[in-house]
Amino acid sequence: MARAGRRPGPGSTSDDVLAAARSLFAERGYRGTTLRAIAAAAGVTPAMIHHFFGSKQRVFLAAIRMPIDPTAVLSGLLDGPREDFAEALVRTFVAVWRSDATGPGLRGMLRSAVADEEQAAAVRAFAGAIVLPRTAAALGVPIERVEAALSILIGQAVTRAIIGIEPLASMSDDDVVALFAPAVAVVLGLRARDPA
Amino acid sequence: MARAGRRPGPGSTSDDVLAAARSLFAERGYRGTTLRAIAAAAGVTPAMIHHFFGSKQRVFLAAIRMPIDPTAVLSGLLDGPREDFAEALVRTFVAVWRSDATGPGLRGMLRSAVADEEQAAAVRAFAGAIVLPRTAAALGVPIERVEAALSILIGQAVTRAIIGIEPLASMSDDDVVALFAPAVAVVLGLRARDPA
Repeated sequence: MARAGRRPGPGSTSDDVLAAARSLFAERGYRGTTLRAIAAAAGVTPAMIHHFFGSKQRVFLAAIRMPIDPTAVLSGLLDGPREDFAEALVRTFVAVWRSDATGPGLRGMLRSAVADEEQAAAVRAFAGAIVLPRTAAALGVPIERVEAALSILIGQAVTRAIIGIEPLASMSDDDVVALFAPAVAVVLGLRARDPA
Repeated sequence: MARAGRRPGPGSTSDDVLAAARSLFAERGYRGTTLRAIAAAAGVTPAMIHHFFGSKQRVFLAAIRMPIDPTAVLSGLLDGPREDFAEALVRTFVAVWRSDATGPGLRGMLRSAVADEEQAAAVRAFAGAIVLPRTAAALGVPIERVEAALSILIGQAVTRAIIGIEPLASMSDDDVVALFAPAVAVVLGLRARDPA
């Protein structure tokens, strides 16, 4: 729905931009989508998008309603010692899912990705272009190992935070970390600090 | 919507029974739901349900649109050697998700469980009453370890079969098994045949 040249109506600009972005990211991939194309499709100027969102990555995160910036979180974790990475990753993931500030948004985002092919395609495009290759390169492991780690984190979120299978759903963060971090370390091919 | 005493209309009986069953399983749990209560809510006789479905478990599987009987599949796997269990579990799970006969039904079931609280509650009730405790008892491990294994399998299904993250989604079954089986063995506390 390109509406180039239309003057944005009051209040609708940001939603128009995000709807156009979601559709373009899903259709053309993350790298294939420019701020210029999003602006044209939403009927605003690239400068306006830049003003409101700051960067393509921020437009993307808002478009898929992602309440955290995974690249910022990961770069913090990747600065730590490798033997602590799996545990720190699981601990951070569980904490942002539990948080009142970010948990509801993350649940909504995952529900959309499971239910809606456009959202799934957008998530896939961003993960494949940025988050996964960057993490694989930093860890020096094949990308499918990072994807397997992501699978374990997502599975944990589905059974605990979405389906609510007990006693797993009510376990303390420490117990969840103790249970899942060794599995994440194994799929990443990393040595955990305390091998079982 | 109890409609006890109503004569079932042609063609609608089975759907009425399944809708009533889904609602009761979600509300009262698996053990708390009787064929008699489902029959009363659907306006049919218990004998009719028995005739059409055979058992409460079969009514349940049909109600959540589960295309396989997980207890039958698991009891086959649990008969094998323990050191092969994790690998056999992942291989079987991946095969039924890939199959044209059962894959679409499994995807639909998981999508519903993520999107719809009634479906989630019914799945949770059945898993918690039957599948998980039975598997935990057979393996001699705490139930949360079996739930963690289920989490890994579900996460693998979400990233591969639902979101479609590549290259993971296109990997051969053998490669998927090689990647995930050691993680499943670790969360189950089982020794794999070839420890990494």
